Amino acid sequence: MQQIDNFKSVIDKYKGVFFDAFGVLKNYEGILPGIERTFAYLEAHNKEYYIVTNDASRSPAQLADSYHKGGLTFIDPARIVSSGMLTKEYLDLKVKDGIVAYLGTPKSAHYIEGSGLNTLPVSEIDSSNIDKVNVLVFLDDEGFDWASDLNKTVNLIRKRTIPVIVANTDRAYPLSVSDVSIAIGGIAAMCESVVGKQFIRFGKPDSQMFMFAYDLVRARMAINKSEILMVGDTLNTDILGGNKFGLDTVLVLSGNTLASDYGNRIIASGIVPTYVCESAVIKEGELSF
Amino acid sequence: MQQIDNFKSVIDKYKGVFFDAFGVLKNYEGILPGIERTFAYLEAHNKEYYIVTNDASRSPAQLADSYHKGGLTFIDPARIVSSGMLTKEYLDLKVKDGIVAYLGTPKSAHYIEGSGLNTLPVSEIDSSNIDKVNVLVFLDDEGFDWASDLNKTVNLIRKRTIPVIVANTDRAYPLSVSDVSIAIGGIAAMCESVVGKQFIRFGKPDSQMFMFAYDLVRARMAINKSEILMVGDTLNTDILGGNKFGLDTVLVLSGNTLASDYGNRIIASGIVPTYVCESAVIKEGELSF
Amino acid sequence: MQQIDNFKSVIDKYKGVFFDAFGVLKNYEGILPGIERTFAYLEAHNKEYYIVTNDASRSPAQLADSYHKGGLTFIDPARIVSSGMLTKEYLDLKVKDGIVAYLGTPKSAHYIEGSGLNTLPVSEIDSSNIDKVNVLVFLDDEGFDWASDLNKTVNLIRKRTIPVIVANTDRAYPLSVSDVSIAIGGIAAMCESVVGKQFIRFGKPDSQMFMFAYDLVRARMAINKSEILMVGDTLNTDILGGNKFGLDTVLVLSGNTLASDYGNRIIASGIVPTYVCESAVIKEGELSF
Amino acid sequence: MQQIDNFKSVIDKYKGVFFDAFGVLKNYEGILPGIERTFAYLEAHNKEYYIVTNDASRSPAQLADSYHKGGLTFIDPARIVSSGMLTKEYLDLKVKDGIVAYLGTPKSAHYIEGSGLNTLPVSEIDSSNIDKVNVLVFLDDEGFDWASDLNKTVNLIRKRTIPVIVANTDRAYPLSVSDVSIAIGGIAAMCESVVGKQFIRFGKPDSQMFMFAYDLVRARMAINKSEILMVGDTLNTDILGGNKFGLDTVLVLSGNTLASDYGNRIIASGIVPTYVCESAVIKEGELSF
Repeated sequence: MQQIDNFKSVIDKYKGVFFDAFGVLKNYEGILPGIERTFAYLEAHNKEYYIVTNDASRSPAQLADSYHKGGLTFIDPARIVSSGMLTKEYLDLKVKDGIVAYLGTPKSAHYIEGSGLNTLPVSEIDSSNIDKVNVLVFLDDEGFDWASDLNKTVNLIRKRTIPVIVANTDRAYPLSVSDVSIAIGGIAAMCESVVGKQFIRFGKPDSQMFMFAYDLVRARMAINKSEILMVGDTLNTDILGGNKFGLDTVLVLSGNTLASDYGNRIIASGIVPTYVCESAVIKEGELSF
Repeated sequence: MQQIDNFKSVIDKYKGVFFDAFGVLKNYEGILPGIERTFAYLEAHNKEYYIVTNDASRSPAQLADSYHKGGLTFIDPARIVSSGMLTKEYLDLKVKDGIVAYLGTPKSAHYIEGSGLNTLPVSEIDSSNIDKVNVLVFLDDEGFDWASDLNKTVNLIRKRTIPVIVANTDRAYPLSVSDVSIAIGGIAAMCESVVGKQFIRFGKPDSQMFMFAYDLVRARMAINKSEILMVGDTLNTDILGGNKFGLDTVLVLSGNTLASDYGNRIIASGIVPTYVCESAVIKEGELSF
Repeated sequence: MQQIDNFKSVIDKYKGVFFDAFGVLKNYEGILPGIERTFAYLEAHNKEYYIVTNDASRSPAQLADSYHKGGLTFIDPARIVSSGMLTKEYLDLKVKDGIVAYLGTPKSAHYIEGSGLNTLPVSEIDSSNIDKVNVLVFLDDEGFDWASDLNKTVNLIRKRTIPVIVANTDRAYPLSVSDVSIAIGGIAAMCESVVGKQFIRFGKPDSQMFMFAYDLVRARMAINKSEILMVGDTLNTDILGGNKFGLDTVLVLSGNTLASDYGNRIIASGIVPTYVCESAVIKEGELSF
Repeated sequence: MQQIDNFKSVIDKYKGVFFDAFGVLKNYEGILPGIERTFAYLEAHNKEYYIVTNDASRSPAQLADSYHKGGLTFIDPARIVSSGMLTKEYLDLKVKDGIVAYLGTPKSAHYIEGSGLNTLPVSEIDSSNIDKVNVLVFLDDEGFDWASDLNKTVNLIRKRTIPVIVANTDRAYPLSVSDVSIAIGGIAAMCESVVGKQFIRFGKPDSQMFMFAYDLVRARMAINKSEILMVGDTLNTDILGGNKFGLDTVLVLSGNTLASDYGNRIIASGIVPTYVCESAVIKEGELSF
């Protein structure tokens, strides 16, 4: 079984750090107590960092705002890379005009809007506008009626040969210690299997998420992949994706993967992190600026 | 490309016939005009027949009633084998007591009820009764709130180690010439992928459906598999399942598989019916008793 | 966690017992010491029993012979139901003439031969006989050159629209305490994904195996599903299949599923046996005729 | 159905072009006649271009050499991005020491060798060196004995918790007009399903291939994604991957996708190229420098 390393000793070896959000910086009870020390340390030592998160429900500004409210005032919106941002980049590059049909809240749709495109919830697609729909986006599991709008979605995809974007690959997300919620990635997979067409997915473990953050960090400093550490709580998204992109990885035991279980899970999955740490929190006594 | 045979000439070679329902006996416009002649012919020549249908939303009596209203007065409830009946057999054999949690309409639940078991919609499961739930059944896509009840379903399966039954394997069903609806089989597959457990499925192409009908027909006459014909409109349920069970099969072009397309679909899927016929309707001039 | 029951007490409740072979009656070291007492007990109490095994490499007579050599002299070939027998039934019912191309040993092919059919190893298929090939069967992982014959197989399936039978669904089988071997079911799945056609599979957990044994036992005595017990060491074949068919099931810990692990595996898979027993061996002191 | 565009008119709109190799520049008969005019045109107009190919069997120098022999003397090794190069980058970044076990030819292994690593064919792994194996790579379908070495591979992965790299995602590749060969990607998928662990795959449609080429082209000129065109013959690798990465795409009908069929395939898959062209060959009369 892999030994447990000290998180501060691990990040001392790198110039840049990518963090997953849920299970690493926060959980269902809010921001992890003491995690602000980690960011103070990174800032003090001029290490670059990004939050790399499968989330298309809000803009980076709104995500940063939620960190600020929880006491993590360091996090700048410019430090956040979300699967929603990849979706927005896709629409900007690939969809020139027409309607972007979406499943999600108006807030999630507002963020991906761009010049020349109108977003319209699937519930408002009808025979008068269906021919103008040029792309469909799965954004969030909230903001629509599952029964009527998912049936409408399936028939829209059968009638129009258009790209279908899944803005978050997660199939479920945790609500509390004991409960999960079906995520938009799970809903999209159901629709994909019903229609038999191929959707486009954005989110970890896909390397496009890491590339987006890597492009941003390279714009700030000269750095290469071997100098960046990916920190995550989930083997088959954070660690698999980070490893594949060529980054060193650290599995933290503050979220999806439990201290009692991590050895078995690594063996069963074959997904091996470079390090294992209790959490991304630097303990109070460890700080020295 | 396989030639198109005359349906009456085909059934003349067999002592028993199994029929799929949707796309063979009826479609979204109702009972197929003239199909009553086929059943008159079967009766007149003492051929045994069964309707073998992936449907868990109603009892055989209710299904037969819907045929009668459409003018197909021959069909007796005892001639109908549904995936709901397999579900009922499973509950009778394998679940001795406690609560049967279900997704579907009260009508669908009423049918599967048996001695010693209480059915309860997922919406009514709470902390006071969750420990008595001994099985969960996916019955119908109607009768519940998809968003709240599917999330509740996923958490029920995570908390209780119980068998989960999918009473209809279909992922979608046709509503009109151009529209489909997501079926309970598609919804169940989403929940299965989210929780990562193995569900039990009843319905074609699984051989248990054919075995159920085969047991019934053998109770009525001495017959073996080579003397039974399976009639269906769908290659990967009716024809695949019938072939695998050892029956001869006929693909009819009155439903899912189109006359313009059947040759390509047979080649692409590798699922080869024994015969191809326009429909299961015997033409008026062909009858001679 | 499910408690561990006494095997003799469990079988006392049933009139018939179905046994998996590998991991239940024998392992890589041979016949399980003492298992002959179990069969003596079944015979003495007039309980019906069948061996239900995913094996298409040998005929029932050859399989019985291997039990006899190991000291299990009770086992009659008529007591053995194999996935190879389902394959033979399929060929008898569905393939009238022409060539049966196969992957496997000549011994495995000899067994499935029937009137009117010629078996030919894939290696001997060429332009002179390819048009006469009416079915392809995956029988055994031995007896052919994997590289050349699997490539030939893939191209045969692409050129001929014929049924493809997989006579054993297992993806791997154990060779020793630490090593496994890729089984013909794993090889067939690779070919299926390359050609994109739908193969026909015989073997547990599919219910057709259980039905075959159920038909045989009903020919010997009046019995129904609730009076039959399925004994197996593997959750996702023996136990899942037995449960689905409506049988009570017992997981034995003498094979694939370890005593240290069975509780976790049941929870993770959601496949719940009716009982758990150490093994199918009745201890010496327990016998009383 | 999408109209067919003139290839020269299409590339006139872009500053950079990425080409798939097989089905675009060459087929089983060799280099496409006239394709050298396309590269002459690109050079004359200072357009940047890269060959982006799922191939790990040879180094870029060896690949370029094969183009030169076929008459396509323009292609510089520095213009070639292969899935083998991604594999080499992974090893350089993530594997510090020990043995790289591989399936493939010695030539394919030689290319990925780097400092501190020893490559060893799976056939030479034994109890004396298995503990030093730190990564396993699927490189090529040739150069090993499928039966013995694939069984050895499966047991190696079960015993060692190490990353497993699949250096080419393709499941098959064409040998002639009528025949295909199983590719190393198909073989790897079989091993992955047998052991139940998660492998790491390099190759289109994964975005890491496109990113590698994008980084190279940006080092040569200021360019962004909207100024690059991806040219390919396969919808679910070249076109899906190019679209997802944010590039405009052109489907050429000189390889996997036929002129008689492309409309149906686009509708069935939901993968929509920006353009469709007969081939990537610029006709003789069209050239004007």
